[in-house]
Amino acid sequence: MSGGEAGNEASPRRSYAKGVARRSQIIESAIEEFADHGVDGTSLRTLGDAIGVSHATLRHYFATRDELLVEVYRAHEQNSVGEAFGSPMPEGESVVEAMAASADRNSSIPGLVRLYATLSSDAVQAGHPVSEHFVRERFRGLRALLAEHIRAGQAAGDIAADFEAEDAAALVIAASDGLQVQWLLDPDDVDVRRSLALLERLLPGAEHDTK
Amino acid sequence: MSGGEAGNEASPRRSYAKGVARRSQIIESAIEEFADHGVDGTSLRTLGDAIGVSHATLRHYFATRDELLVEVYRAHEQNSVGEAFGSPMPEGESVVEAMAASADRNSSIPGLVRLYATLSSDAVQAGHPVSEHFVRERFRGLRALLAEHIRAGQAAGDIAADFEAEDAAALVIAASDGLQVQWLLDPDDVDVRRSLALLERLLPGAEHDTK
Repeated sequence: MSGGEAGNEASPRRSYAKGVARRSQIIESAIEEFADHGVDGTSLRTLGDAIGVSHATLRHYFATRDELLVEVYRAHEQNSVGEAFGSPMPEGESVVEAMAASADRNSSIPGLVRLYATLSSDAVQAGHPVSEHFVRERFRGLRALLAEHIRAGQAAGDIAADFEAEDAAALVIAASDGLQVQWLLDPDDVDVRRSLALLERLLPGAEHDTK
Repeated sequence: MSGGEAGNEASPRRSYAKGVARRSQIIESAIEEFADHGVDGTSLRTLGDAIGVSHATLRHYFATRDELLVEVYRAHEQNSVGEAFGSPMPEGESVVEAMAASADRNSSIPGLVRLYATLSSDAVQAGHPVSEHFVRERFRGLRALLAEHIRAGQAAGDIAADFEAEDAAALVIAASDGLQVQWLLDPDDVDVRRSLALLERLLPGAEHDTK
């Protein structure tokens, strides 16, 4: 067993619970720090200084900066996309509407949109296996989830059936990601929701007028 | 005048021409280097080592790593998007088709898709003014160019006229950018062209069957 600070005196079970709590606390502090100040150039050391946690403690819970970034984003997303795509998705809500709602929530916390930009850029470069794995699996999971809803809509006759649900799922996710980057750079000129709404013409929700 | 290597013996005009040529040569070498090995972690120093140019010479032509990345991408794009969106755009080619053709060309050089991911991620973080300026202006220019073509299509009755051309332009660019990231991570599962083609249903080209 490692000799970190989390397990010196207490029983193993109690120290495990304390460790989990401490780790969550660090993630919550990091979410706030990134939301306020962005992530660029943040090393484990500078983050530790910002949230008042020693470098040794951070290293005890997160082996690398990439691992911390991934866990922070994962924790944030469980409150966001998880909310939008909880299974089952609300009756009559389209996948486009769900992505737009998620983008709306993100727009209140630009620091986390920036964190996502960092993660997905790192993921496609060499030398970031943790980010690469996380972002690839996230895309796969989201595509599968959206495709399932699209297929259900196609089967119900609410969505045109002459295209592959997977192609449309990739498109909706890509549009949402790309629009958020343009919006960060030009918040007055780019309206994520209005542009995404155009996709409703391809993928109308159950309540959409399809005439 | 600065005392760099470009202007010691020759006349000012000749040394200027030599400087321009040397700068282009460095950019060409950097395009090849990034295409082959990606950009992540590349400092001016490591790039200089890779392409056989001294650090001092690189610094003579490019003040910072960001400036070099921007110039490399700009030079690459003039051969790519510039080709796709040369004015006038070919009669009957849709904006979606033009973006898809540009994405096709990019897919043969993943290193430059990675460079673009780095640039656009840097652009939304604090502390990268050169990247931020370049990426913002690039988006503005592309949106204006696509919107102009879309408006022309709307005026000609080839494209539905009940939406803002600017919203559709932002959407097409976002979809293309986002799909290329997903494709880099899952080339077998994501087909940029097929997903983009779905947008033709919104924005048919002149030759598209709009019945």
